[in-house]
Amino acid sequence: MNILEKYKTVRSRSEYICAPLKTEDYVVQPVVDVSPPKWHLGHTTWFFETFILMPNAPGYTEFDPQYNFVFNSYYESVGARVIRTDRGNLSRPSVEEVMKYRRHVDTAMEKFLSSPMEEDLEALMILGLNHEEQHQELLYTDIKYILGHNPLMPPYDPGRKSAVTAASKARWVSVPEGIYSIGHHGKGFCFDNELGRHQVYLAPYAISSAPVSNAEYLEFINAGGYTDFRYWHAEGWDWVKTNHITAPMYWYLIDDNWQQYTWSGLQPLEQDAPVCHVSYYEAAAYAAWKGLRLPTEFEWEAAADHFPWGQRWEWTESAYLPYPGFQKAPGAIGEYNGKFMVNQMVLRGGSEVTPPEHSRKTYRNFFHAPLRWQFTGIRLAKS
Amino acid sequence: MNILEKYKTVRSRSEYICAPLKTEDYVVQPVVDVSPPKWHLGHTTWFFETFILMPNAPGYTEFDPQYNFVFNSYYESVGARVIRTDRGNLSRPSVEEVMKYRRHVDTAMEKFLSSPMEEDLEALMILGLNHEEQHQELLYTDIKYILGHNPLMPPYDPGRKSAVTAASKARWVSVPEGIYSIGHHGKGFCFDNELGRHQVYLAPYAISSAPVSNAEYLEFINAGGYTDFRYWHAEGWDWVKTNHITAPMYWYLIDDNWQQYTWSGLQPLEQDAPVCHVSYYEAAAYAAWKGLRLPTEFEWEAAADHFPWGQRWEWTESAYLPYPGFQKAPGAIGEYNGKFMVNQMVLRGGSEVTPPEHSRKTYRNFFHAPLRWQFTGIRLAKS
Amino acid sequence: MNILEKYKTVRSRSEYICAPLKTEDYVVQPVVDVSPPKWHLGHTTWFFETFILMPNAPGYTEFDPQYNFVFNSYYESVGARVIRTDRGNLSRPSVEEVMKYRRHVDTAMEKFLSSPMEEDLEALMILGLNHEEQHQELLYTDIKYILGHNPLMPPYDPGRKSAVTAASKARWVSVPEGIYSIGHHGKGFCFDNELGRHQVYLAPYAISSAPVSNAEYLEFINAGGYTDFRYWHAEGWDWVKTNHITAPMYWYLIDDNWQQYTWSGLQPLEQDAPVCHVSYYEAAAYAAWKGLRLPTEFEWEAAADHFPWGQRWEWTESAYLPYPGFQKAPGAIGEYNGKFMVNQMVLRGGSEVTPPEHSRKTYRNFFHAPLRWQFTGIRLAKS
Amino acid sequence: MNILEKYKTVRSRSEYICAPLKTEDYVVQPVVDVSPPKWHLGHTTWFFETFILMPNAPGYTEFDPQYNFVFNSYYESVGARVIRTDRGNLSRPSVEEVMKYRRHVDTAMEKFLSSPMEEDLEALMILGLNHEEQHQELLYTDIKYILGHNPLMPPYDPGRKSAVTAASKARWVSVPEGIYSIGHHGKGFCFDNELGRHQVYLAPYAISSAPVSNAEYLEFINAGGYTDFRYWHAEGWDWVKTNHITAPMYWYLIDDNWQQYTWSGLQPLEQDAPVCHVSYYEAAAYAAWKGLRLPTEFEWEAAADHFPWGQRWEWTESAYLPYPGFQKAPGAIGEYNGKFMVNQMVLRGGSEVTPPEHSRKTYRNFFHAPLRWQFTGIRLAKS
Repeated sequence: MNILEKYKTVRSRSEYICAPLKTEDYVVQPVVDVSPPKWHLGHTTWFFETFILMPNAPGYTEFDPQYNFVFNSYYESVGARVIRTDRGNLSRPSVEEVMKYRRHVDTAMEKFLSSPMEEDLEALMILGLNHEEQHQELLYTDIKYILGHNPLMPPYDPGRKSAVTAASKARWVSVPEGIYSIGHHGKGFCFDNELGRHQVYLAPYAISSAPVSNAEYLEFINAGGYTDFRYWHAEGWDWVKTNHITAPMYWYLIDDNWQQYTWSGLQPLEQDAPVCHVSYYEAAAYAAWKGLRLPTEFEWEAAADHFPWGQRWEWTESAYLPYPGFQKAPGAIGEYNGKFMVNQMVLRGGSEVTPPEHSRKTYRNFFHAPLRWQFTGIRLAKS
Repeated sequence: MNILEKYKTVRSRSEYICAPLKTEDYVVQPVVDVSPPKWHLGHTTWFFETFILMPNAPGYTEFDPQYNFVFNSYYESVGARVIRTDRGNLSRPSVEEVMKYRRHVDTAMEKFLSSPMEEDLEALMILGLNHEEQHQELLYTDIKYILGHNPLMPPYDPGRKSAVTAASKARWVSVPEGIYSIGHHGKGFCFDNELGRHQVYLAPYAISSAPVSNAEYLEFINAGGYTDFRYWHAEGWDWVKTNHITAPMYWYLIDDNWQQYTWSGLQPLEQDAPVCHVSYYEAAAYAAWKGLRLPTEFEWEAAADHFPWGQRWEWTESAYLPYPGFQKAPGAIGEYNGKFMVNQMVLRGGSEVTPPEHSRKTYRNFFHAPLRWQFTGIRLAKS
Repeated sequence: MNILEKYKTVRSRSEYICAPLKTEDYVVQPVVDVSPPKWHLGHTTWFFETFILMPNAPGYTEFDPQYNFVFNSYYESVGARVIRTDRGNLSRPSVEEVMKYRRHVDTAMEKFLSSPMEEDLEALMILGLNHEEQHQELLYTDIKYILGHNPLMPPYDPGRKSAVTAASKARWVSVPEGIYSIGHHGKGFCFDNELGRHQVYLAPYAISSAPVSNAEYLEFINAGGYTDFRYWHAEGWDWVKTNHITAPMYWYLIDDNWQQYTWSGLQPLEQDAPVCHVSYYEAAAYAAWKGLRLPTEFEWEAAADHFPWGQRWEWTESAYLPYPGFQKAPGAIGEYNGKFMVNQMVLRGGSEVTPPEHSRKTYRNFFHAPLRWQFTGIRLAKS
Repeated sequence: MNILEKYKTVRSRSEYICAPLKTEDYVVQPVVDVSPPKWHLGHTTWFFETFILMPNAPGYTEFDPQYNFVFNSYYESVGARVIRTDRGNLSRPSVEEVMKYRRHVDTAMEKFLSSPMEEDLEALMILGLNHEEQHQELLYTDIKYILGHNPLMPPYDPGRKSAVTAASKARWVSVPEGIYSIGHHGKGFCFDNELGRHQVYLAPYAISSAPVSNAEYLEFINAGGYTDFRYWHAEGWDWVKTNHITAPMYWYLIDDNWQQYTWSGLQPLEQDAPVCHVSYYEAAAYAAWKGLRLPTEFEWEAAADHFPWGQRWEWTESAYLPYPGFQKAPGAIGEYNGKFMVNQMVLRGGSEVTPPEHSRKTYRNFFHAPLRWQFTGIRLAKS
């Protein structure tokens, strides 16, 4: 696929994801981590306008100079921004105006992409497309949050079945001691945080071939896992008590039956599906209760060819830190990843809502330990 | 006008107020005091469904039992409610569904109102209509807040002029010492907080025939009124410093010119218009700076036949407390006013967005001292 | 008593109140409303140093210029202050240093008071003495809070009995309709908020001759008063639920017996004593449950010669507002009362820890509606 | 030294550290991270009473059963505790009572330690002594905070000089690629988080022989380091702006001269001393500004024999995570370290207030990224 076709594909997929929404669903921000869908649609557009068209497309007319203020997310280099908690207060620009903005930028981009471009600029283009794909995953997770926390629990798509099949029977994959190479190599696209391929010594370990299932996680709940501090980090235990956590997000115990909010509304819990929407604290507590542990991101990557993955983002026991040779890119693009490298945990794998290009074995996803609105699950390891 | 016609008039006016909005504008709640317009439209409908149709209209089918949870505001007697700060997180029911809800209830109400009803029920009907009219004023003030705090500052109606004419030249209206009767009498509708007509002794006083103008208030600003603690209540001074208050709400100093957000967008400040969108703290500080004071609500009412009013709600120096003979009504209706009678200040008069029936001289409006998104102004008095 | 003797009497009483304390008890500030006892001792001394000695006593040497920063409470005219929530973080000046400060100022004051002074200055002296007496009441209430909220519940004075005798049998005192004069008159000292004696018209009413007793208040608790929203102001109900309030402050239900923290530690609840340590919300809810109401401050004052009072501060249904002729004094002294005249309720009477001079029938005490660490009780009225 | 002598030495050192304090200094808790000195003295005593005497010393009489509630810190296994933010509200037990508590426990311990004991118990004894030594460092840092944040800035010891000598001229220590062994080995005491000696592959790197000096850090300040977001983590930048950070803790720019609060009060900044009291955010921002980075904890340990250290705790780029073979001990002792292994950064080395036994090269100290009341500094590395 050439870059113009790739551009069209990515751009139309964002709008496809939003197609089942009502206009009102595009607007709200129920918690700070969730952004309004129309903000995602505007922000990804702003990226192309600001970093590609404005500096490189002669004669391009900015759609609206005020949009920089509205749709910048966190690029400190590029001017003031609407602070994150305020996004849900903005009724304007309307969805229709955001769609016009997309049309305006798409028209200019399609013209721009018809001519060849320099390598640097192409790299930036590819980053922009990967950026929009990241927001596509957020569109799914944020839409699920918006609908799933509405007291009416409307379905996203009444007929949609989960793409996730039953977890296979777990066995232990043994990995011998050795020095393993970690990080991206080869020609394909990767993010800066995957670069700096380097060697890591690993002691012998075993990693489960299958993620933890809902049925297995229910045993933890039924054994009193949420009421016994011994399995929890100190701040995990505070989180459980402060927020009255008793189960994964979207689980409801109704008349003694566990139900789960899904794309098609409230449904009985699927016992064999991999557990989903758990925090790092819950993943670590479950592992402690089993007398096991989570894998490090290095153990995960070294073994990833030996088990299936991609159904759930898998919490690792690794903090999100720079690889030894990590270098920030200069300018605004340099803000992409490095500045988040403190107080977050790495997740590996990918989920049912991850665009295919974002499910490579060197991909480093990262979130704060208490967050669980992403499609996050658990894989166990042992020394 | 009979009660059916009255019903139709009131109901259609709510929708007329919202006509210039885009769908997205119906959804957001930028601060806790402001409610989403679609919530106002649903809540006023819920009132008629819950208090009139459900108990009195045989065969009426409830539109959706979950709506009680969504549209109850604060009637503790009538079940759980969406807590106030969450209203802006609800994308559903959609505007279209709320409009269907209105149609459903209106159809049943119009049938119901075609037959004669008992006196008690008619009183409740009239309360319901007055209730919706109160929300009409809130619709205006909340819409102004939603649009006026959007960084794009969209107009509500580009061609709309303010209904407020220039303040006339102020003179002092002297009122002699005496015993005055305060509170509602006669046959027309009033709220329970106006009842218990009673006598109040007033020492001689004078009250200004005109509200304070923008030009006069600017003198206070230019004299450093917002930086001199001596004019302020202690908690007013904290409010000024914590919130960096330097002018009334919606005022902006742009290139040394004062501008004001209005129904038609940002406009130059009208010097002769009565000052608007000030808090009680600001009203009291302005009066202190002038060496004068605000009138009590009794002084205001006793003199109200001797000056024009109704352009701005006027802060008084009276706290919102029960009149001597105040009685709560039994049941949920009894929650209407009495439970708010602590820590609020009384406002008298009415504003450009007050429905005509809510501008009588015994009407007691009330808000917390720091609030100013209502159309609030200042009238001075002296002993 | 001449002013020098009066000075010595007042000053030594403050230290007498603190005599049973350990050094550590002088330091802590468990909640923002409570101040450390050593702060009271320093602040009252700072008043005399700042307002009497510094401007009027030639040759007086300031004890320590930094103390103005530490011991100023809220006089904005007199420089920066330690913000209120920080008082409990200050281990220095030590109690010993504060006592030296008192000695230093007392020596200078006693010399200064040996010579005659002008009338204005004498008025300021008398204000300073009344100011220290107000802080004596706060010393008692704050000490009770500090000890009574310590998990060890140490007694203040193991042998001390409460000074409060059993409430007498209540009867209704009827007061006829009429115009009554309210406010201070005559020659004795009063605060500025009592001045502006003025006429108030009162409809006929009755007021109870005795305060509500613990036994009567227990009936309210046992009848579910704290779990029925109908008796409460909306913000009172929020206060009950947010703070899990189920009884007056210092009441504990231990093994099904009500106990109360007192000056001599935990003791069985005295059934006949007047109820104490209730908030305005509780007082108003109790009255609503009885189908009665609280008196206004005017009704209280007009009837005060006809029943005993002074055991408990009595919440009234009056907000703390200026009397018609209220005038702020010029300068820092003008900050004494006027700036608090919003969002507080008036209490009348006096308590077992009120200095005798602060229990006159025109005295206007005031606190915020949720506060109850003062010795506050309830008297009922009806129209 | 036998264990009885060791016990006496450790216990008396805690009291020696507190000797210069006034009684009031023992009581306050200005921020949540700082504990009142008397709490440290009681808590370390509670450890010996609870874990050694109560289960092992027949006939031992508990000093006061309520002290478990007051002096437990975070051992969930051992009953309810005073929540951390409340410690500064407790005036009782008094310092004198805490000292009696220490005498009571010391007497019993000295008798108990005169007899031989089993190996398990001896291990627990040694843990208890190391625990008290950790609190000795906290005593120093908390005392410095309490006095250094008092507006009077009293010295801890007017004559005391800092023990820290000028930083030597820095040079780069080069370390070759290889597999290095990390973690404790040998017979001496260590904490559980140092165990699980394991191999780590390190790419070649260089580490500075000297910590960053005040003079060098001043260059960062003067170059605008605190106002340029590019050097900061996103949450570090929020921290700078929210807290108005412009220099290390205890630095004051007075009349254009930098001063520093020290043990002997406010003193001119020592240019050659290693910079102290910086957060992880500041350490990382300084390194980014220099185009360098912090060492990982593995790089630090592998090179620690090749440069002097121990003047400042040195922030590393490693998150505090379990070593591969980490095992929690069973019971309450198992809560010692493992439950904190999320969202903290590792520091290596030791400071002027670290007890000698706590300055070994495998020691893993850990704190949250924004904290800087410890004696924390910066050492640079590069790949």
